[in-house]
Amino acid sequence: MAEEEGITAKKKDFSEWYNQAVFAAGILDKRYDVKGLNVWMNYGYEIMLNLKNFWDLLFREHGIKEMYFPLLVPEKYCEQNPSWWEGFKDQAYWVKSSDEDKASHILRPTGEPAMYPMFSTWIRSHRDLPFRIYETVSSFRYETKHTRPLIRDREITLWHEIHTAHASSEEAEKEASLHQKLYDIIWRKCALLPLKVVKPEWEIFPGAVGAVEYYNYMPSGKVMENGSINNLGQAYSKKFNIKFRDKDKKEKYAWQLCTGNGARLLAAVIGVHGDDKGLVLPPEIAPVQVVIVPIYNNKTKSKVVGKAQQLKAKLPFRVEVDDRDEFTPGWKFNYWEMKGVPVRIELGEREIAGKTITVARRDTGKKEKIAEKLLEDRIKKLLGSMQNDLLENSKKQLEVAVHTAKNKKEISSLAGNGKIAKVHWCGSEKCWGGIKDIEEGIELFGTDLKKSGKGKCVLCGKATDTVGYVANTY
Amino acid sequence: MAEEEGITAKKKDFSEWYNQAVFAAGILDKRYDVKGLNVWMNYGYEIMLNLKNFWDLLFREHGIKEMYFPLLVPEKYCEQNPSWWEGFKDQAYWVKSSDEDKASHILRPTGEPAMYPMFSTWIRSHRDLPFRIYETVSSFRYETKHTRPLIRDREITLWHEIHTAHASSEEAEKEASLHQKLYDIIWRKCALLPLKVVKPEWEIFPGAVGAVEYYNYMPSGKVMENGSINNLGQAYSKKFNIKFRDKDKKEKYAWQLCTGNGARLLAAVIGVHGDDKGLVLPPEIAPVQVVIVPIYNNKTKSKVVGKAQQLKAKLPFRVEVDDRDEFTPGWKFNYWEMKGVPVRIELGEREIAGKTITVARRDTGKKEKIAEKLLEDRIKKLLGSMQNDLLENSKKQLEVAVHTAKNKKEISSLAGNGKIAKVHWCGSEKCWGGIKDIEEGIELFGTDLKKSGKGKCVLCGKATDTVGYVANTY
Repeated sequence: MAEEEGITAKKKDFSEWYNQAVFAAGILDKRYDVKGLNVWMNYGYEIMLNLKNFWDLLFREHGIKEMYFPLLVPEKYCEQNPSWWEGFKDQAYWVKSSDEDKASHILRPTGEPAMYPMFSTWIRSHRDLPFRIYETVSSFRYETKHTRPLIRDREITLWHEIHTAHASSEEAEKEASLHQKLYDIIWRKCALLPLKVVKPEWEIFPGAVGAVEYYNYMPSGKVMENGSINNLGQAYSKKFNIKFRDKDKKEKYAWQLCTGNGARLLAAVIGVHGDDKGLVLPPEIAPVQVVIVPIYNNKTKSKVVGKAQQLKAKLPFRVEVDDRDEFTPGWKFNYWEMKGVPVRIELGEREIAGKTITVARRDTGKKEKIAEKLLEDRIKKLLGSMQNDLLENSKKQLEVAVHTAKNKKEISSLAGNGKIAKVHWCGSEKCWGGIKDIEEGIELFGTDLKKSGKGKCVLCGKATDTVGYVANTY
Repeated sequence: MAEEEGITAKKKDFSEWYNQAVFAAGILDKRYDVKGLNVWMNYGYEIMLNLKNFWDLLFREHGIKEMYFPLLVPEKYCEQNPSWWEGFKDQAYWVKSSDEDKASHILRPTGEPAMYPMFSTWIRSHRDLPFRIYETVSSFRYETKHTRPLIRDREITLWHEIHTAHASSEEAEKEASLHQKLYDIIWRKCALLPLKVVKPEWEIFPGAVGAVEYYNYMPSGKVMENGSINNLGQAYSKKFNIKFRDKDKKEKYAWQLCTGNGARLLAAVIGVHGDDKGLVLPPEIAPVQVVIVPIYNNKTKSKVVGKAQQLKAKLPFRVEVDDRDEFTPGWKFNYWEMKGVPVRIELGEREIAGKTITVARRDTGKKEKIAEKLLEDRIKKLLGSMQNDLLENSKKQLEVAVHTAKNKKEISSLAGNGKIAKVHWCGSEKCWGGIKDIEEGIELFGTDLKKSGKGKCVLCGKATDTVGYVANTY
């Protein structure tokens, strides 16, 4: 078992540590024999389902309705949007039946080509708007870049996409603000603070209004894109003929949004919070919040395990009792630390006799003895503190990573050394592109939503109050 | 809108009625331009999710763990089981990337070829057993038969498969009995009584021990297979090399089960319970259990709709208020009847003044006036009665369909006329096959789990206490 062997130190080689942590903790199994495709093990899947169930509730609460579209997309749907198709064609998985000579369908790489021809059927009148739906589904891309579990997979599993259509650009803007709020809530669930940036027009779909994207600063020193809210304007509705008769009897193209994210949320949780012992899971999404490791010998087993089961039944958390005879308590401690379980209870005869329980917290490693009658209250507080502390820790990691750079040399020494350079930037495509030439692999990946104080573009020297972020990206 | 037009009478043409009901009620949209693939509309998806959430809880309660396997299966995994591959090859959807000349992967048609190579990796010792998992996933088959929504689709959505491996055949048998119990519970949720039959050995995988299958008697006069529990014995473990070292230190092949079902559950709910007005949903799976239709004019609108919202907030059911101005109350009655909502509340000024509420029940169409303070209790009872009555109705439909046949002529006049013939049968493959020759389309589709009184085989005359069922099948 991989769990016994320990994993590479996180600081020594983040990439190696990440791969080992993912597989050793029972998130995925990479031995499925197709490159870029992994099996979700039960433990990993449960974490993602906790997240999925949460976004299901959240979207439902806000009136966004769940649907499901087929995975096979006819080529002709793709062709309705030639510039999009041009970009995705090379990454397409083509599908054909035994009957066919030539494949005329692909596996969905994104939602638009499957969804929007139907939108055009459903949306006729202003009364059909706003139209607000989502689905959680796999997307497929034949990635030519290096694949990485949860970060760059060829089957992108548990991916949600919200698609909305509106009768006015104002309404679409309002919806976009709502999506930002929803994502803030999801980020808190993950105990993560991402960097939220705006993409310039040449980085988004031609004709679209704008895009907000989220990035996590990973301990590798690179930033990872993690979810986006795309204000498509009328760019897609014009391609897919999504028109409605408005109150003024005029035919208009709908204003659209598309917002999505998925298993990279878990990749960020693992990367940002994990340590040399393995995962550290935010209590709110941990499938097991408390593990009880009973410490016993043949004579005391029934008493100690019985007590452990009793505690499990009483505690209103997700509790597991590890009473496997074949492993020692020490081995079990490592095993559950690897899996990132927030709280561990060590329970032996002495604890039972003394009516005090030893409790260890995963993130700090601190142990304390708690009177049995106070156990529930204390664990509740521990779980709450750990959720908060992890979020604070994520904020701190980001703060420490971001530094202002005033010139190319400073950009190079920051972004080239695993930090994020914050720079004044004139807003031009030329200077955006020019950043890439400073050093291999780095790029300006977005601008801050807020205007900053006055400054000069780090490349051309023009006066500007726009600030952007430069880093190495995944 | 299709809802306005009404649908074909169920008795006149069941097949036509079924198709119309599915689309008019907002279960699926068939206008997605790939044959055999449909879009799940929100309303239909919500019904299936109610079922899915239920089986998720049920399986979890019984320790069966959820996982997820990739949709792409390498051909070499398929080839590990040549007799299976022979049967599925023609129905395969082949997948290739833009890079490849020849496709070497298929979309999963069933779980075994994706799962069992991994089982062989994971299962090493008796300590790894029992291994009990499931996934809910799409399966893909290029069906050459006539496709029908939810009954025969090319993307089989929301399909669950339980796969278990055991250290002994006795343990596998026990697990199979548990699966029967779990399925009984799911059937009650659907308010359906299926016919449960056993398949003879030549109808199951070579080397497998046995299969229990469920069939619904549909008002078309045909029976529809709907889920199965397959005791695979060691047939697959020998193909996929799923071995374990037992307590006696000997290497043994695992004993396996595979159990699955999916959206045909909803097909049966629609087919068995629906009527000329559309769907009739069992309250336990209805996304909307109570619809409130406020009856108002411009002057009374705010008062009546306000009261409706108040009732919605108070009632502990899944309640919807239909306050769309553009439709009349009569139109709304039809609309929600089409969708099968169990209970309708009609609420006007008169009702508010008199503090009595008019309530209509979907299955019987009966209306009653209820004092407002008794409303919650009364609706709770109505929903409970309706769930029971639908189940009883399903039992009755089955009872009325099944008749004993003593000879070929009686089989022909029963099974040839939309009934199920119950026949004594000697148990031989020859007589099983001989039934097919009696009349085009009919077949012996399984035997009763219980032995019956003594009788003679309806074909060869041999004495037997085995009873089988003959009908036209989907």
